[in-house]
Amino acid sequence: MTSLPASVSPAGPEAPDGPETPDDPETSGGAAGAAGAPGGAGGGGAGAPGGAAGGQPSSPPGGAEARDGARGAGLPAVWLRFNCRCPLCRDPVSGQRLLRITDIPADISVAGITASSGTVQVLFHPDGHRAVFDQDWLARYGEPGRNPPPDPRTEDAKRLWSAARLGGDPPRGSWPRYLADAGYRRACQSAVLRDGLLVLSEVPADPGAVLEVAASLGYVRETNYGRLFDVRVETSPANLAFTSLPIPPHTDNPYRDPVPTVQLLHCLDNAADGGDSGFVDGFHAAAALRAQDPAAFATLAVTPVTFRYRDAATELSATRPLISLDARGRIREIRVNSRSLEPVRLPGARAAAFYAAYRAFAELLSSPAAMLTVRLRPGDCAVFDNTRVLHARTGFTGGGRRHLQGCYADLDGIESAVAVGERATTDDTRRKDRI
Amino acid sequence: MTSLPASVSPAGPEAPDGPETPDDPETSGGAAGAAGAPGGAGGGGAGAPGGAAGGQPSSPPGGAEARDGARGAGLPAVWLRFNCRCPLCRDPVSGQRLLRITDIPADISVAGITASSGTVQVLFHPDGHRAVFDQDWLARYGEPGRNPPPDPRTEDAKRLWSAARLGGDPPRGSWPRYLADAGYRRACQSAVLRDGLLVLSEVPADPGAVLEVAASLGYVRETNYGRLFDVRVETSPANLAFTSLPIPPHTDNPYRDPVPTVQLLHCLDNAADGGDSGFVDGFHAAAALRAQDPAAFATLAVTPVTFRYRDAATELSATRPLISLDARGRIREIRVNSRSLEPVRLPGARAAAFYAAYRAFAELLSSPAAMLTVRLRPGDCAVFDNTRVLHARTGFTGGGRRHLQGCYADLDGIESAVAVGERATTDDTRRKDRI
Repeated sequence: MTSLPASVSPAGPEAPDGPETPDDPETSGGAAGAAGAPGGAGGGGAGAPGGAAGGQPSSPPGGAEARDGARGAGLPAVWLRFNCRCPLCRDPVSGQRLLRITDIPADISVAGITASSGTVQVLFHPDGHRAVFDQDWLARYGEPGRNPPPDPRTEDAKRLWSAARLGGDPPRGSWPRYLADAGYRRACQSAVLRDGLLVLSEVPADPGAVLEVAASLGYVRETNYGRLFDVRVETSPANLAFTSLPIPPHTDNPYRDPVPTVQLLHCLDNAADGGDSGFVDGFHAAAALRAQDPAAFATLAVTPVTFRYRDAATELSATRPLISLDARGRIREIRVNSRSLEPVRLPGARAAAFYAAYRAFAELLSSPAAMLTVRLRPGDCAVFDNTRVLHARTGFTGGGRRHLQGCYADLDGIESAVAVGERATTDDTRRKDRI
Repeated sequence: MTSLPASVSPAGPEAPDGPETPDDPETSGGAAGAAGAPGGAGGGGAGAPGGAAGGQPSSPPGGAEARDGARGAGLPAVWLRFNCRCPLCRDPVSGQRLLRITDIPADISVAGITASSGTVQVLFHPDGHRAVFDQDWLARYGEPGRNPPPDPRTEDAKRLWSAARLGGDPPRGSWPRYLADAGYRRACQSAVLRDGLLVLSEVPADPGAVLEVAASLGYVRETNYGRLFDVRVETSPANLAFTSLPIPPHTDNPYRDPVPTVQLLHCLDNAADGGDSGFVDGFHAAAALRAQDPAAFATLAVTPVTFRYRDAATELSATRPLISLDARGRIREIRVNSRSLEPVRLPGARAAAFYAAYRAFAELLSSPAAMLTVRLRPGDCAVFDNTRVLHARTGFTGGGRRHLQGCYADLDGIESAVAVGERATTDDTRRKDRI
């Protein structure tokens, strides 16, 4: 269990601030990890009093709308009824909803709305239920035209980068300070969410230390490679990671579903000639592909491809597009790994179009401008978003020693750690009322 | 690490065979877990010899096609080149691809094709590379009109069910036999993939035994609830699971991303009046919704909704549709949990349409015909696909004892266990050549 601070300081990591202007103005959404919209700005949103709605039993599906006459938009009666926050509808201890959608009469309507001292009372027909809402809370949801907050997993909540935009250096943090300073720790965790990459220094170069870093971020995802895996040269490796060959940019375990969403690589020893690490922002490259060749981008987003891995004890496959979009069409996940990509099964012309699009994407991913090259030193631990940031390795001489230890974890644990840490720096009483 | 058998017997579990005719003929795809198409049926597919293709450098993107004159379809030159299986292009030890798409000349074309004794040799231009393919292997990919095999995660690879179609009883297996008989174990694992549900009996009713069942299926997914969690009445529960209230059908942890894809619930004690378990096939209900109300189905598939969970040490949220489709539009994942569903952020009419669609889906999910009711007895362990099968609980009296232990795992581990187990029952040499 992650130990989380009761209070945090506002200090940030020593990392460079990074690019202030993302490539694509559309991608400059809210901060990663902050799923909630800014609270309660602006007065009475829709559903607020004023033009009170009477019963309108035959309006759109779900029943009548509670209209805000001044704005011409409102929250439907079914919305208000389903989201009632009274103790009958929502458990006061856990905050979880007790009401089921099927408990609500299909012809639910609003019989009356009254407002007083920052709250809105709603009387429903035909069940006679009464709900009381905080007006500011309602305004978060009802204001006409207000868009939902950016999904923290998509490009909209990220700071996209190329090597040049990061000044050639990754976001960095100090492990001793991370341990000692809750605010600094939260800033480091936020960097993983926002930038997809963080290099922590001064992690003791001891076997297993990477698991301590992972525990501070959530939970280790165990796989067939173990809770912990060693990356060094093996004699008969089942995976090219365990050779001295160069490895082009890739995401790990694309043949796994669910894919591990975070990877950690901790350097214990790196005396090899070569063996530098490379990192590429796959969201940045995907956004660049969309800008330069929308058809290629669309091809990769709609073509499921199969990745496969096989060794003596394991056989995994997963079928997903190289670029996965959310339901709104925003970039949400990258899966790229030429080592394990199975032949596509498409008619000839479509297969050729797929490989052409894949080539265009791969060229963006492997361009020198895109890739940040990092020489991991003993004690450095890279933490990166495996749904977004590709990693690579230059080849190295077999004679030199190189030993990394890695493990997998998941983004949701980091998001939770950041969200809990932020509670101490916000007006917690108000947040509790709203969530 | 799962211990897997060197050989298996063909015996199946004692479970009923279940429905032989799925509801929707479209959903009667291949067996779950079998990602590969049936091997090598039919002679020379496309890319096979016959009308050998000369260089056709200005064909579709990716270069010329190697045409099978007899069939009028072929594999593009870039397909053949990228999927060359020679030791320069693919590591002979790991089987992983060494070639990168960007290593291939953009104007790659086929300079000549010759066939002999079941193999096809291809000479490429301009790099002069030579590839040799097994003709049967090529035929799997090149035959015109051959569709890709069903993605084992989608409805296409599942056996959809209602309670009536299962005869009111879940697929069942015996834990002692599961341990003793590798073929039986594999059949049980396959039932989880195919039906989304299995009840194993005679698991020792000892604390922690559920972790042994999970270990036989892959790896435990640790969460804020621990590696193992107890489901029994608590005094101040943060989650309604730990009360005696009835719980409507839901998937677990919808606020987590990646969501745990498998859940296990092991009954240690159930002397309460009530407290029966219910299981509903969410894919079946989603397919029924698609048939009866395509607009409602589409609304749920394209509307991302946010689920949120919060307690003293944890704050999780995830934004996904209730019904997730794959890139081909097939049902791939269900997320339903009224307890943690946040208010939707949509304009009024669209919000009303969403809740109407959600109501229609919830009515299908909670219909008595859909839900399988199971009284878990001490020693029973239910294993179910948490991306598909919803679970529920009837209320029970606080006085009676009821104690379950649960944990999470992932489908990819089960798929791997089945695939490795199946090796012993197939022509392994041929499979190795192909994978």
